[in-house]
Amino acid sequence: MTPSYLSLPHHDGSAAHVPDDAPELGGTATVFVRVPHDDGASDVHVRSTPDAEAEMWPGVVDRKTDTETWWRCEVPVRNPGTHYRFLLQGGPRGYRWLTGTGLHPHEVSDAYDFTFTTPPGPPEWARDAFVYQIFPDRFARSPAADARSVPHWAVPAAWDDPVDSLGPTVATQFYGGDLDGVTAHLDHIADVGADTVYLTPFFPAESNHRYNATDFAVVDPLLGGEDALVRLSDAVHRRGMRLLGDLTTNHSGDTHEWFRTAMSDRRAVEREFYYFAGPDSDEYEAWLGYETLPKFRFASAELRRRLLEGPTSIAGRWLQPPFALDGWRVDVGHMTGRRLADDFNADVTRALRRTLADTGRDPLLLAEHSFDASGDLGPDGWHAVMDYATFTTPIRSWLRDPDTDEHRHPGLPPLVPRLPAESAAATMREHVARRPWRATATSWSILSSHDTARIRTIVRTRELHEVAAGLVFTMLGAPMVFAGDEIGLTGTFGEDARTPFPWQREDTWDRHTLDAYRSLAALRRGSPALRRGGLRWVVAQGDTLAFLREAPEERLLVLAQRSSADPVSVPAAGLGLGGEAPNVFGGAPALVSREGAVALPGDGPTFQVWRLS
Amino acid sequence: MTPSYLSLPHHDGSAAHVPDDAPELGGTATVFVRVPHDDGASDVHVRSTPDAEAEMWPGVVDRKTDTETWWRCEVPVRNPGTHYRFLLQGGPRGYRWLTGTGLHPHEVSDAYDFTFTTPPGPPEWARDAFVYQIFPDRFARSPAADARSVPHWAVPAAWDDPVDSLGPTVATQFYGGDLDGVTAHLDHIADVGADTVYLTPFFPAESNHRYNATDFAVVDPLLGGEDALVRLSDAVHRRGMRLLGDLTTNHSGDTHEWFRTAMSDRRAVEREFYYFAGPDSDEYEAWLGYETLPKFRFASAELRRRLLEGPTSIAGRWLQPPFALDGWRVDVGHMTGRRLADDFNADVTRALRRTLADTGRDPLLLAEHSFDASGDLGPDGWHAVMDYATFTTPIRSWLRDPDTDEHRHPGLPPLVPRLPAESAAATMREHVARRPWRATATSWSILSSHDTARIRTIVRTRELHEVAAGLVFTMLGAPMVFAGDEIGLTGTFGEDARTPFPWQREDTWDRHTLDAYRSLAALRRGSPALRRGGLRWVVAQGDTLAFLREAPEERLLVLAQRSSADPVSVPAAGLGLGGEAPNVFGGAPALVSREGAVALPGDGPTFQVWRLS
Repeated sequence: MTPSYLSLPHHDGSAAHVPDDAPELGGTATVFVRVPHDDGASDVHVRSTPDAEAEMWPGVVDRKTDTETWWRCEVPVRNPGTHYRFLLQGGPRGYRWLTGTGLHPHEVSDAYDFTFTTPPGPPEWARDAFVYQIFPDRFARSPAADARSVPHWAVPAAWDDPVDSLGPTVATQFYGGDLDGVTAHLDHIADVGADTVYLTPFFPAESNHRYNATDFAVVDPLLGGEDALVRLSDAVHRRGMRLLGDLTTNHSGDTHEWFRTAMSDRRAVEREFYYFAGPDSDEYEAWLGYETLPKFRFASAELRRRLLEGPTSIAGRWLQPPFALDGWRVDVGHMTGRRLADDFNADVTRALRRTLADTGRDPLLLAEHSFDASGDLGPDGWHAVMDYATFTTPIRSWLRDPDTDEHRHPGLPPLVPRLPAESAAATMREHVARRPWRATATSWSILSSHDTARIRTIVRTRELHEVAAGLVFTMLGAPMVFAGDEIGLTGTFGEDARTPFPWQREDTWDRHTLDAYRSLAALRRGSPALRRGGLRWVVAQGDTLAFLREAPEERLLVLAQRSSADPVSVPAAGLGLGGEAPNVFGGAPALVSREGAVALPGDGPTFQVWRLS
Repeated sequence: MTPSYLSLPHHDGSAAHVPDDAPELGGTATVFVRVPHDDGASDVHVRSTPDAEAEMWPGVVDRKTDTETWWRCEVPVRNPGTHYRFLLQGGPRGYRWLTGTGLHPHEVSDAYDFTFTTPPGPPEWARDAFVYQIFPDRFARSPAADARSVPHWAVPAAWDDPVDSLGPTVATQFYGGDLDGVTAHLDHIADVGADTVYLTPFFPAESNHRYNATDFAVVDPLLGGEDALVRLSDAVHRRGMRLLGDLTTNHSGDTHEWFRTAMSDRRAVEREFYYFAGPDSDEYEAWLGYETLPKFRFASAELRRRLLEGPTSIAGRWLQPPFALDGWRVDVGHMTGRRLADDFNADVTRALRRTLADTGRDPLLLAEHSFDASGDLGPDGWHAVMDYATFTTPIRSWLRDPDTDEHRHPGLPPLVPRLPAESAAATMREHVARRPWRATATSWSILSSHDTARIRTIVRTRELHEVAAGLVFTMLGAPMVFAGDEIGLTGTFGEDARTPFPWQREDTWDRHTLDAYRSLAALRRGSPALRRGGLRWVVAQGDTLAFLREAPEERLLVLAQRSSADPVSVPAAGLGLGGEAPNVFGGAPALVSREGAVALPGDGPTFQVWRLS
């Protein structure tokens, strides 16, 4: 048998283990921990820290199956954020704590305790979403675009022109995609299987990426203006889909009226919106030193009022009809409000959460946050994040071609290593352990975005691209696909990956890859285990990742191999495999038990899913 | 050779690795990481998150010794709290991160990053302190005590009477120790080697422990009143020693005037000082349900003003002459200000830090905090804690007699296990990793307190008591000794351990133990490595703990054995042992290298210290 996680006690935040993962303040949460009979624990306690005082409560045996005992514990929900872990005693492993990073035979800190928060939290729909990311200048042009005059800052490009990713026009090369272009291609998005459209900024700005907003109050006329956004929103919602915008809370553009007023009038209230070197200075703090991006200063109550607070604020008004956005992806969420001794990040998220809640609808607040976001995902924090740290980084490190010319991960050194499956699983476990399950379940699993190399470039082959796509749709979190990944577009870093979508060159599309995305999206859409289930590791070894996704209704086994390797053999009982497990993705034979063991195929690269029950 | 930590790269917050561990905001901190030649790293980066954006900077080779390379890195001090870790590449171990918990071959979260905070921080003197804890009712009676009348709530006891630790008079049994009694016995305290006297509360209260204060504005007349405190303070300071008080910020007594006013006058401002069930209710929130301890509600600005803010507040006035306390130990610091959705803990610490700073002196603010205190030790938090989690719990679990009748650790189940050295070291590493080095260096290492069983009861034998005492004086943190431990007093839990100090029965003192405490205190007092040095693990295996304490001026090797075990053998080069290392505590022979290895004695229990350089 291959060394496996199946003999280890398991807990995660999914419904089988935490029936209510958003319990009311002042109540009690029931949590279950599963102990394989081989482990032999005879005593289980749960430990938490109500009002910061550590306490423990004994668990009771809820039920026993052929292979494991389910212990039930009650955790008081004394504070908006509750963390807990389990103490197991008895059996050959002796005294040991179970946290989000596994078993520990010593007194651990609280760092990897399991955690949940009281309501309200992320919207339920966000757990089931499949998000399709669109960079408007590069997705599709409507006929109306031809009639628009090119602005003074822009260098026009024809749709077939190569992207200037390193030259002087990287931010000004202008293809002229627009919102009616998006509306015209919703059939494609729905055909891939996505149900949520996420647009990078639609505000006017003197760049093709539009993150340096000139005005947050209007839709860029180059994109078709407010009317085009209403048309898109209506079309999206008519299909039962959702629409998300992209708001920059860290900075405005230097062309924004607020900033221009701040520069020209020393006594204007807008002066307090930014960080100036002194009362009479023109020097100001800018994002990573880029002068076009002056940083917001949230000590200003007026800035908070205009940008964040209430239905008429910038954050609020686009959520109202007729625009009716279903939430915001927030640019540079992690740095927002943070500078030297200032830290207004929690004030910003609290204000945004209130504004969203006051819509009476159920919008999503999701931050760009490439690293350890756990400190900002509390009860008043972001609902969720673009999950580079939990998903993108480990999966890229595992699947990358050793000779790929991908540029660096953010925050990592130029030479990103190819790491074994053990490292990928350890990274995921750590990051998942650091935050509420609901935040993980609604955070976006991303292979590529407008800020990264394309996954196809990183892994090089169609076969490994399919393994990567398979993981996006079967691991924890909501899949987010950057438009064009599904047809095999390439790019060695963010700007290079912003290729115009080749509608006019369907012959260049990788139809095989597109079919894989469609099938995977359909698999996920129909699977409670993939959308809502827990994740239990089976094997993480070198070239092989295998894990269970389990919901009360359904259990799936997922196998990802980055190359051929010795076949993995695991105990059938540990998998809970009775008879035969049919294959539901990838085409491998059904799984059967032979003398108590199940052999998984060793040929690779491959991505396979079987239904265990 | 025994598997040892000596082949691993090392970093900690001590001066050799972080020359300035309290760098100014906006500047840069230089940090060093040591890489044994065996490790073979050819590339070192440091990673931090200025304004929450992850960035990396390459290190350079600062110098090489026979055994290791010292890499130098610069970390920007962009925020009041900075955390950082190292990425090492090259050599047989490949891609790996170094954090406070060691090497990790995957992308880790920020949980165990190294960390420092900008000034101000804990007072420098607190790094060198040896604290002697006194529970006034039980330490010593002055002649004046005989003339005082016993209060209505008290049940008088003669000094020789047994302590009622489980009966109805547990909180009211009254021995009548007083502050002049303490003053009269400063010779003993100085003789043990302590330089800081910490008194549990001196406020009047209807109990022998006085944690249910009736009044924070006066010294209990039963202790001699303010005049006695001034006499004690003068005497302590004349000796060059320091004096700490004990303030309860979580609650007052139900006999306190504020609470009585709140109960009797619904419109009194004091009503807002506490949590009542409703405007007309007599029901109130009390500490862990004890009705005598109504919990403070720090939403009240008036409460914050009276208790915390400025030189005339309760917290401030006792720091002023003529009382001139050198700081506060804060009772129930961890729960202070926390209840359901309320969390005023950071507001309380920020206010206290400002009040302390405004004295113009250098007082210490140290909290009772038995668990993971890392979240409350930031730039505006407590300076330090009573370090149960980092020291007491792991050392007790390692040294406990399997059959001892010690009662439970707080927050742990009744049956505390006897764990191997691996567990003790892992626990310490995790907790040290979670917080600024300065907080660890000034936190108190405790074997017993008025809230726990006596160490002698836990380990049972004089020999193991000496091992425990050895660890108090040689590990990280400032030693705190509960009066009576040094003469071998016993007690199976907190109340049971509050034995009157047997001044009248010197024949019962364990002179051997007292000598060990004296020698260990003298060793530490004369040793920069023990007071200020780094800690590098050598071996943590079963019955054996061995570690280095290293300062630029001095390097010591410490060995603790809880019983006889196979002798440990480590590489002489790894230890940096040139010729011979003389023994400086414990009486074992000098260490010498034989064929490149150093054998440590295997007989135990024993505690030994050698000077390597």
